[in-house]
Amino acid sequence: MKTMKRIVTIGGGTGTFTVLGALKNAPVHLSAIVSMADDGGSTGILRDSYGVLPPGDIRRALVALSEESEAMRELFNYRFGKGDLRGHSFGNIFLSALEKVTGNFGAAVSEASRILRIKGDVIPVTLDNVRLFARLVDGRVIRGETNIDIPRVKHRPAIADIWLTPNARLNPEARQAIRKADLIVIGPGDIYTSIIPNLLVRGLAQELRNTKARVAYLCNLTTKAGETDGFTARDFLETMERYLGKKVLDYAVFNNRKIPGAIARRYTREGASVVVPPGETTWHGATIVTADLLDARSKKFVRHGPPEKLERLLLSLLAK
Amino acid sequence: MKTMKRIVTIGGGTGTFTVLGALKNAPVHLSAIVSMADDGGSTGILRDSYGVLPPGDIRRALVALSEESEAMRELFNYRFGKGDLRGHSFGNIFLSALEKVTGNFGAAVSEASRILRIKGDVIPVTLDNVRLFARLVDGRVIRGETNIDIPRVKHRPAIADIWLTPNARLNPEARQAIRKADLIVIGPGDIYTSIIPNLLVRGLAQELRNTKARVAYLCNLTTKAGETDGFTARDFLETMERYLGKKVLDYAVFNNRKIPGAIARRYTREGASVVVPPGETTWHGATIVTADLLDARSKKFVRHGPPEKLERLLLSLLAK
Repeated sequence: MKTMKRIVTIGGGTGTFTVLGALKNAPVHLSAIVSMADDGGSTGILRDSYGVLPPGDIRRALVALSEESEAMRELFNYRFGKGDLRGHSFGNIFLSALEKVTGNFGAAVSEASRILRIKGDVIPVTLDNVRLFARLVDGRVIRGETNIDIPRVKHRPAIADIWLTPNARLNPEARQAIRKADLIVIGPGDIYTSIIPNLLVRGLAQELRNTKARVAYLCNLTTKAGETDGFTARDFLETMERYLGKKVLDYAVFNNRKIPGAIARRYTREGASVVVPPGETTWHGATIVTADLLDARSKKFVRHGPPEKLERLLLSLLAK
Repeated sequence: MKTMKRIVTIGGGTGTFTVLGALKNAPVHLSAIVSMADDGGSTGILRDSYGVLPPGDIRRALVALSEESEAMRELFNYRFGKGDLRGHSFGNIFLSALEKVTGNFGAAVSEASRILRIKGDVIPVTLDNVRLFARLVDGRVIRGETNIDIPRVKHRPAIADIWLTPNARLNPEARQAIRKADLIVIGPGDIYTSIIPNLLVRGLAQELRNTKARVAYLCNLTTKAGETDGFTARDFLETMERYLGKKVLDYAVFNNRKIPGAIARRYTREGASVVVPPGETTWHGATIVTADLLDARSKKFVRHGPPEKLERLLLSLLAK
């Protein structure tokens, strides 16, 4: 019997959900390594009230890989309206209560993975309780992922550096997954608040530098106001290189389909700009891959897709 | 193959949990018909905030019959401390979110039964959204199960009558369970707030009058302040008869073991008194069964048990 190829994704949030959704039915073993820096919304309230680790990104990855009934998947993403559970997502409450009962977030994720009958594994990048900090180019320090994610001012100076406090240790399951991987897909996702918080975990970048697996960076479709203002494709690559080390990436994947005018204008109004693929075919040893990766079904947001096309592209990197 | 005998329990709260726990490993099919009148605590807040049906008693019955891992069972009973989920039981949140997602409390109970891998069935007595009302002998009307359950004054006049508003229709699954039953066990539990709220559901008492199954009433060990002050065994039986109809009970089961002095004194201080079995051997056609049914393991509360003894006694009623 041929052993199944192993793909590891690294990220958090919507981007990872999209990639996992695309690969869910592929004949590969999937491991999703997920950022643990989130501290906004329902996740932030649960962290502050109950001292739990951030459930939000883990929940999204679990739902993406779940083979449970539609009702169970919906349940996990269900958000309460008015009342004292307002804004809480059920899946976040589930993971937090399970962490309280088992005394261990890793055990809570395993139990939830079993209940949701997920395909593959969802792995918190670290089991340490960490917070994300950023220093802006003007020297100001911003505390907390959600404050970095959502700028409180219209034009915020660029981010100069970003770090986790305290130092986070790599979850041994994440290390194992990387060591067994054939392909590692980093992104898409907010580079400073979803992607790099993984790379900041001590030992992860080292593992990626040493891996024999192909490493692909799936770049965002647009920049994000207050986080990557004016970033070009090259800026994304340089930022990745800064936290990842030199010559780690084997592939850098960019969308080359034009974003429809109406959607593009809305993003522009919100301070984002379209990321145009670089002109080169390689960059610091990485092959630049460009493809039509814009999900035309999405009329309001720009999203990678459709799933079949994204799956095909990612599996082609595995075959190369 | 011999068909399994079928036992149906009717009640709500701790008493039902005790009986289900005792019968869980018995070679019988179990169906738990559960009161839907609760409106206190976490259940009451969820009802008021989200317009859901009361999850609390259903949750307790589900956990009693669950064959899932200890962690999952603990999870369902887990109660949040401080913070905005304060006092909520996780299982209640689970059932309410599932009701919101499926749009149907019955479907939520089925889905939760599957997730918790329960032995037998847990059946809400009605799927109508009802409230319990009581009229005291002085004419005052009290609205809501929790206000009837927890008297706001030290000496409250006796309850003269009790009803559900609006009229509740019997859940067809409850009807089916009763029609297929070999033994029906009513109680133990607070007679006005956990037991009779089932009998008030239109059609239930009728089904019990017509059933070929044996019907047993498992009487409480003590009275309850503000609800059954000064009740003798006969008062319990007369109250049951009033809501059930004449000659429905085949057995009335009473504990005959003396409650240890220290526990009895604590109950007396809280306004409760010990229920002494009636002197007769029959009452209006029902056989009076007396047995040592006091769980000696419980040092603080009086509880029916131990489980093996309660199981043996209930199975003996099936065999008679």
